[in-house]
This record gives sequence, C-alpha cells and structure tokens, in this order.
Amino acid sequence: MQIDDLETPAVVVDLGILDRNIAGMAQAARRSGVALRPHAKTHKCVEIGRMQLAAGARGLSVAKTGEAEVFAAAGFDDLFIAYPVVGEDKGRRLLALVDRVRIAVGVDSAEGALTLAQVFQSAGRSLDVLLKVDVGFHRVGVAPAAAAGVAGRITALPGLHLRGVFTHAGHGYGAETPDRLAQIGREEGTLLVEAAEAVRAAGVPVEVVSVGSTPTAPHAMAVPGVTEVRPGNYVFRDASQVGLGACGLEDCALTVLATVVSVPSPDRAVVDAGSKTLSSDPLRPRPGGHGLVLSGSGASRVERLSEEHGAIAVAPGESFRVGQRVRILPNHACVVANLQDRLWGVREGRVETEFRIDARGRVQ
Amino acid sequence: MQIDDLETPAVVVDLGILDRNIAGMAQAARRSGVALRPHAKTHKCVEIGRMQLAAGARGLSVAKTGEAEVFAAAGFDDLFIAYPVVGEDKGRRLLALVDRVRIAVGVDSAEGALTLAQVFQSAGRSLDVLLKVDVGFHRVGVAPAAAAGVAGRITALPGLHLRGVFTHAGHGYGAETPDRLAQIGREEGTLLVEAAEAVRAAGVPVEVVSVGSTPTAPHAMAVPGVTEVRPGNYVFRDASQVGLGACGLEDCALTVLATVVSVPSPDRAVVDAGSKTLSSDPLRPRPGGHGLVLSGSGASRVERLSEEHGAIAVAPGESFRVGQRVRILPNHACVVANLQDRLWGVREGRVETEFRIDARGRVQ
Repeated sequence: MQIDDLETPAVVVDLGILDRNIAGMAQAARRSGVALRPHAKTHKCVEIGRMQLAAGARGLSVAKTGEAEVFAAAGFDDLFIAYPVVGEDKGRRLLALVDRVRIAVGVDSAEGALTLAQVFQSAGRSLDVLLKVDVGFHRVGVAPAAAAGVAGRITALPGLHLRGVFTHAGHGYGAETPDRLAQIGREEGTLLVEAAEAVRAAGVPVEVVSVGSTPTAPHAMAVPGVTEVRPGNYVFRDASQVGLGACGLEDCALTVLATVVSVPSPDRAVVDAGSKTLSSDPLRPRPGGHGLVLSGSGASRVERLSEEHGAIAVAPGESFRVGQRVRILPNHACVVANLQDRLWGVREGRVETEFRIDARGRVQ
Repeated sequence: MQIDDLETPAVVVDLGILDRNIAGMAQAARRSGVALRPHAKTHKCVEIGRMQLAAGARGLSVAKTGEAEVFAAAGFDDLFIAYPVVGEDKGRRLLALVDRVRIAVGVDSAEGALTLAQVFQSAGRSLDVLLKVDVGFHRVGVAPAAAAGVAGRITALPGLHLRGVFTHAGHGYGAETPDRLAQIGREEGTLLVEAAEAVRAAGVPVEVVSVGSTPTAPHAMAVPGVTEVRPGNYVFRDASQVGLGACGLEDCALTVLATVVSVPSPDRAVVDAGSKTLSSDPLRPRPGGHGLVLSGSGASRVERLSEEHGAIAVAPGESFRVGQRVRILPNHACVVANLQDRLWGVREGRVETEFRIDARGRVQ
C-alpha cells in the first residue's frame, strides 16, 4: 500500500525518522552514562516500545497502571509508573504485577504512599517507589528542601521500598529561548541530584536519580549524579519541539495526513482533521494555531479547530483545492497518537506497517 | 456496583438527567413542528442513539462516514452525514450503504460533490445530498447569496439528488450573552430559510431545511420554514453550555470522576484526569480553565492540564486531601466522550449501565 492509498485523516509515522530518533536518544544516554527509560505515554504501542528496548533502553516509563498492565502482558519486564499512584484499588492491581515484572511507582506524599503500602504490607510484599521532586514545574512533587523529610516518612512505611527520586521539568515547554531551555534542564538535574544527596544524608539510600522531558533531556542527563533519563516525545517530535528549538522539522516523525474538503474563500481551506484528530493542545512555547501545514510553502497554519474540521489560514501566495491532500505537523504528538486506534508506518511513500495503540483507553 | 466502586478517572453519565435531556429536546422539536435528527458525534454510542429514536427522533446525524457505518451496522436506517464528504474512497463506502440505509451527505461545492457523483453515476445509483449554507460561522458552506447558484451546479451532476439545505451556527458558542445567542439562532433559521427560498426560486425543490447546534436550537427551529433540527451536545450538556446560559448545572449529565493524587500546596490539588480525559478544549464563550470542580463549594476550577494531571486552583476556604474523589464538569462533553472506551450510566449513586463508545476511532 502506498501513502496515497490511505484514507484521511490518517496519522502517519516516517519510519526512517522514527529509527533515527530512537537511536539518537539511546546514543545520547549512553554518552552521558545514564540509563534510558523512555516514556511510553507518547506512543502507547508495544511495537515501538520494543524498538526502544532493542536500541538499548533499560525499560519503559508509563503514566497509568492500565498502561503498565498492557506492557507487562506484552512481556516488558521493567516498568516505572512515573506518576503519584494513589489508592487501594490501584495497589491491588500493582500487587498482581510484581511477581511477573520489575515495577516501581511514583509517590509524592506519605498519605498517598500509605494507600499502596497497606495493600503490600497485608500481602507480605514490598513495592518499589520513587519520590517525585518538584524542580520548578509546580505540578506535583515535593520541594527539594522537603525531600529528605518525606523520604524518611515513606521509608518508615512497611510494604514500600524507596529506591530513588525522579522529576519532570515540564516548565521547559514554556522556555522562550534555547538558552533558557538549557538552563531549566541543568537546574532539573542539579536540583534533583541535590535532593538525592539530602535524602542520602538523612540515611536513606538512593539508587535511582531520574530526570524526565524530551526538550530538557540533553541538558539534565549531563549533570553528574543523574542515573536515568525518561524522555517520551522524542520518538515522534512535533511542532512544539521545533518551536522550542529542541529539534528541526526534519526530526518530526509523526504527521497527520488530511484532505481539503472545502475552500470557502481564498484565505481559508478546511481539512477533515479537527480537534478529534489534532487535539486542542496549544503550540509551545507560544500559542500559534493548531498545526503547521507542511504541504506547499510550509507557511500556512491550521488556525481554528472544530471537532472534525481544521480551518487553514492560507498564507499569501498559496492556494489549496478541494480534494487535495496535505500533511500537517501537529502541536503535540503524544495526544494525537492517543486519539487514534492505529498509526501508519511509512518509508519512502510506502506503508510498511501499522502501529496499534495498544494501551489506548487504558486511562485508569 | 456503586459509583464509589468505579476506578478513576471515570466518565459518568447521570441517567435521570440524560433521560430528561433526550425527552426535553424531542418535546421542543415536536412543539416547533420540526423533525429532530440528533448529532451522534457527541456520544458515538448505539444505545444512546436508540434512546433518542425511542423519544421521537427521525434519524441520526453523524460527522464521519465511519460513524455512519457503525450506526448502519447497528440497524439505524436513516442517517445524515452532516459534513462536506469529499473523495472517491468515501463515495465507494457510501455506495455500499445506500441499499441498506436511507442516507444523505453534506456538500458545499460542485468540486467536492463531483467526487461522489462520479462513483454513484458509474454504479447507476443516486446519492441524496444537502447543501451546506454558511450563516455566519465562516467555517464551511456557501454564502446564502451563492446557495442557488451552487445548488444548480450540484443538481446538474448525475448521480446526486439535492434534497435540501443545512447549516450549523457554531458562532453561537462565542455568544457573550443569552440575548446574543438567541439572535444568532434566529438569524441561523432566517438566513437558511431565505437560502432555501432562493434555491426553490431557481427551480430546485428543497425538502429539508435543517439547522444545527444545541445552544441555538430553541431559537433556530422556531423560525417558520425550518423543517429539521440537529443538536448533538444536548444529551450531556457541559460547562460551556452553562457558560452560554443555554442550561443550568442541573442539566449536565456527563461528569468526570477523578481522585486527588497530590496536594502540593494549600492552593493546588492535582487529580488523575488530565488532557487525555478532560481534553484541552477551552471553556465557551470565554476561556476559564479546564473544568468546574462540582465537589465542595463548586468554586474551584481545573486551572492547568498535563496529559494525565489536572491541577485544581483551590478556591479560598476550600481544601482537598490526597485520595479524595471529586466530580468535574468538563468544558466540552463531546470530546470527553470521544477519549473514552466507555461511559458509566449512574442513577442515584448506582452504576446501572455501561455505554460503549461504539464509533470511537472511526475517524475516516
């Protein structure tokens, strides 16, 4: 099958770029002497996860217990749920996994950790946990100065084994310049290593010091003392990574193939991909439409979305015709993949494979 | 099963409110003397579609050929694809449906219509089409003044039968006041009826004059000459419908049940529902966070989303604790349902049914 045979909208992955992205991050992690544990939330796909392991990744990160179950069932044996998992229901599901899989989960409070500890203690088992440290994103996690105290309380809970600390510098996505991005990445590594030292000074061993985020990864993993990096988006990249200066257009593997269904005026063309395909996620670091139209001059953007309509603001000098196919680079590849049942793997215009989104819908 | 037994995040539908919303719109359409053809893109669920038919709907509207296939396979025999369908591939799939189902599709250009006409003409068959008219949303559709001309060109194409005209006043979602919303609704009906008259004056019969959109429906369907109304969102409603003054909180059937996983500071609580559950769609008519927290005073909002995190800006005087369950009213119910495999139907705290999102992922 050729790419022209795909019905639209279709989400297409350039296999050459995918291979290069997977190999490139693996090589960068090796050079920095850190373990690579890619975040599978980006693709939720067993086959792509296997490609990452084959390239040298130690294991995978996931966001949800349901995602861990899917990858465990597919034979992945080293998983980290990079999320403050809370609740006895989740604890019981984790208990069902620990015999088969080396698994660790995030925690960021003694209260939350207790809900898991009780399940594991009752069963006479132990669950590995990593403490989330907030290095400036201000989403979840404990302040670096509080890490030693919370680590002590978590270590005191029977049923849990604190193996390390982790962070995610999501504020990197707001970095207005590459210099600022690099600074945030260095801070991410430095603050986390300092937190790890403080935890150790309090008598709690710290084995894993794990940083996250694709754009900050090159900077954070270079900090001495960091042991692991967990980028997710790097396999696909997207318009936001380009906007951040973290990669070029030629590094973006995932695009949306759409058809122009209406050209109501010379300055507007409407395609059959809307928010249910491209998502409403904003462009980072600055808002700027809902996708870059790669066809033509590359100067046109998807300006407005409805659920199934993408309205392109046609750049001066360009024109589109009804029935024309266009390639769109989305703002955020991770949420685009999550909206699909499958992605099409393409090499030199030929559709070579279909990637199933195996963990799609595993939201719990 | 009780609602407290559901793992989070879970999307919950209050069955009493759902019944009332379905009955209410059916009654309003009857009173206005128009046919009701609900847009199934909101729920993509066969069971809810059947409830709408049982309440008196004539048939369903859908957005995608793939959605039409799902509902046709489930026995629905009167469908309208309210979208300018373009392309021979789609035409061939429609050809496979016309023997089993009364089906019509939208068109808004002779160029687009031609791609379908060729398929049907070759097969010696005819496809019913409705011409989309732009009444001010400026997305797709022809200007009212151009309707007669385009209708003439489409009628001239063998393989197609123009049955009517339709519109969608999506700009109603930007209405800053209920008065402005009512005005947009009346204009929607009036401009479409005028376009229908112009088409008739040019010698083309017009059977169907169909208006869309939940918030404008009460106003548009009251205009004499309108024959059909196609609201979608009304089954669930959401924070945007409340924001528009189109309904009250008590009319909202769909909510997201989430668990607080972290309380990093007194003014921030983080739940396990992010953009992969709530979507990034903005609140209408004015941006204002990503969901209303109904638990507590109702004054707290989801302020910030990551893929799996929703950060609540905690209202003064409120507090949340780790492990607490909260109900969130999302900005846009249609995209929330689309992110799920299933919705849970709940009555008085008891989980009575599971609604499968049958047409989920049928994006083509």
